[in-house]
Amino acid sequence: MVGVLEACRRAKMSAAAIALAGEEDMNKMLAASAKALRERAAEIIAENKRDIAACTRGAQFVDRLRLDEKRIDDIAVGLEKLISLHCPVGEVLEERTLYNGLRLRRVRVPMGVIGIIYESRPNVTADAIGLALKSGNAVVLRGSKDALCSNRAMCAVIKGAIREAGYDPEFIQLIEDPTHEGATQFLKMKGYVDVIIPRGGAGLIRNAVENATVPIIETGTGNCHVYIEKTGDLDKAIPILINAKTQRTSVCNACESLLIDEAIAPAALPRCVAALREKGVEIVACPKCRKIDASLSEATEEDYGTEYLDLKISVKIVGGVQEAIDHINRYGTHHSDAIITADPAAAQKFLNEVDSAAVYVNASTRFTDGFQFGLGAEMGISTQKLHARGPMGLRELTSYKYLVEGEGQVRG
Amino acid sequence: MVGVLEACRRAKMSAAAIALAGEEDMNKMLAASAKALRERAAEIIAENKRDIAACTRGAQFVDRLRLDEKRIDDIAVGLEKLISLHCPVGEVLEERTLYNGLRLRRVRVPMGVIGIIYESRPNVTADAIGLALKSGNAVVLRGSKDALCSNRAMCAVIKGAIREAGYDPEFIQLIEDPTHEGATQFLKMKGYVDVIIPRGGAGLIRNAVENATVPIIETGTGNCHVYIEKTGDLDKAIPILINAKTQRTSVCNACESLLIDEAIAPAALPRCVAALREKGVEIVACPKCRKIDASLSEATEEDYGTEYLDLKISVKIVGGVQEAIDHINRYGTHHSDAIITADPAAAQKFLNEVDSAAVYVNASTRFTDGFQFGLGAEMGISTQKLHARGPMGLRELTSYKYLVEGEGQVRG
Repeated sequence: MVGVLEACRRAKMSAAAIALAGEEDMNKMLAASAKALRERAAEIIAENKRDIAACTRGAQFVDRLRLDEKRIDDIAVGLEKLISLHCPVGEVLEERTLYNGLRLRRVRVPMGVIGIIYESRPNVTADAIGLALKSGNAVVLRGSKDALCSNRAMCAVIKGAIREAGYDPEFIQLIEDPTHEGATQFLKMKGYVDVIIPRGGAGLIRNAVENATVPIIETGTGNCHVYIEKTGDLDKAIPILINAKTQRTSVCNACESLLIDEAIAPAALPRCVAALREKGVEIVACPKCRKIDASLSEATEEDYGTEYLDLKISVKIVGGVQEAIDHINRYGTHHSDAIITADPAAAQKFLNEVDSAAVYVNASTRFTDGFQFGLGAEMGISTQKLHARGPMGLRELTSYKYLVEGEGQVRG
Repeated sequence: MVGVLEACRRAKMSAAAIALAGEEDMNKMLAASAKALRERAAEIIAENKRDIAACTRGAQFVDRLRLDEKRIDDIAVGLEKLISLHCPVGEVLEERTLYNGLRLRRVRVPMGVIGIIYESRPNVTADAIGLALKSGNAVVLRGSKDALCSNRAMCAVIKGAIREAGYDPEFIQLIEDPTHEGATQFLKMKGYVDVIIPRGGAGLIRNAVENATVPIIETGTGNCHVYIEKTGDLDKAIPILINAKTQRTSVCNACESLLIDEAIAPAALPRCVAALREKGVEIVACPKCRKIDASLSEATEEDYGTEYLDLKISVKIVGGVQEAIDHINRYGTHHSDAIITADPAAAQKFLNEVDSAAVYVNASTRFTDGFQFGLGAEMGISTQKLHARGPMGLRELTSYKYLVEGEGQVRG
């Protein structure tokens, strides 16, 4: 078994080669990987069955862990889609001649070594490899213990395919140490790893924030809001609310909290409650709501800060757009928040002042996604402001450097 | 005295107001601050004298700490220069209509609250305030204990001027707790502070890397190299080397290590040694150098990794451009490195493969600087790859967000 340090060291040693790979070579590696995943699906499924047999967690968890021919084909399609995306490496971001004749260029370069810490879903393994590859990066993968056999099989198939295509696959490294100590060691691999992207639940993210010496990009915690402003059209608001809350509950861009303007609450709240209940959504609500509908349970302070990821929602009546903004900035996770309004001034204020990665007017929060935003793919959704915000595609996996060319200039 | 938490809380509470300030208001605040610094210079100098009287450190340190009318005028000029720089907030970075009619814009926004931890030089206080202000950010300053009276006086003058000009100056917060525990607490102010920029020596940076839960941008450690490739013109190389090493030794973009191609070492080394010695530079060198010049002291492994910030340099003979690149990537700090060459292929290889913020061909490393690069000002020089690399100006103190406007779109 390759230890954490050795995996990171190998990735670092391989970073220069993949950084210099041309786009044509990258695409050949992606095509070979996709082909091999389909051809060797049975091997991967057999290893995945071992993970499932060993898994003691619930049915929903097992479902996310499971791989079958269809899911493996989807993963292969994902890699093939990356072929058509433009590799951002080498892009000249700025170019100018300085007062002293120096020619200055700011050029996009790969990050170097990208680390990913993720939970059960084994498709992330291939997605992360593909995105790292097409952005010229080496990658160190640290999946969960539950998916270790599946991840190992998937890496072996992809690395084998890359090797057979005539390239060195050592820019892909899987950490096979499933311990908590191993994860902590990985988070401290400064000097080997340039950035770590933790993908998973709040505990995983918190552990990364508290222990990492490698720079990290926080992702995926989404306490998203839908706010129905007093001029909001309920015929738009209700479908948006239901879509944001129920179209898929386990995702970070799902709505967790509904805010309603006091002025329209007597009419709006009952319609929202009826629509939510029809979809089986449990509702907790503020005292003002409970004055309108006594059947509602009481929301605690904690509810407003909770990402349920389930058929549950908190509802609060607010005095207007300022109170809505203040509530969202206080309790939210700076992910995705929406206003439903017919008032351009309210919309503009909300867009300006809500401090989130994606701010919506009259649309569902569910659109915050690399594919929906036209990035073609994504490595996760950043909820921090440093480096990248919102969906991270290939561009967000790059850095830049300054190239300065002269004829002997010195500083006076 | 305002505690660490309270200072960060006040900055966070004031972030929305400064983020929404228009450029005209920002410029009025800058002009008023510069004017007040000049008018109240005597007060600041009196407080600075208290710092100097209490300081038990060496003469060079005291010199960096000292403020006089000339230095305060320079600080005021620095603030006035920011007036002519364009505020980057609000810039539309991307704009498109998605397949479903959603209008998507990616817009530059302030970071929110920027923290700075810095050492003695009190001019950083005003520079950081000015840069934060012109990029729409609140700022929390944590200077050194040695400069506390000076920093307090400077903040009081600037905040007073902003208040008199009719604005709320609470977006500027100075941490007056000079303890190590206070610094550590500041580094953990996640949720209040969006990024912390540590500026100072290696120990200060290491403490930030190891203790921060707030994202940080590493700055300023510069183990920079000049590499004389075998086709390099010595009449260019020697002035570049001397400029990079001796024009100012205490700065991060000064040269600390010289690499010379084996093929030209017999001719090049003696000329380099003579020129360096003429400037009083102490030289430590590899065994191959010592075969050419037995008077040279031996360099240790540690020397190659040392940022001397002094009249001292390590010298190593390398087999060619690949060995030079490998040495720089291994021992350097990814700051600024130069090749002296007449061979375009060697230059291109060096530009591509040296993993540093700024890579030079035939020019001094001393140009890595916000003013020299035309950014107009700088908050420090990043040596990490996440978010910003090299000199950080106003643009590098911003983030972005996605604004999405629709007419009721939901996700299918």
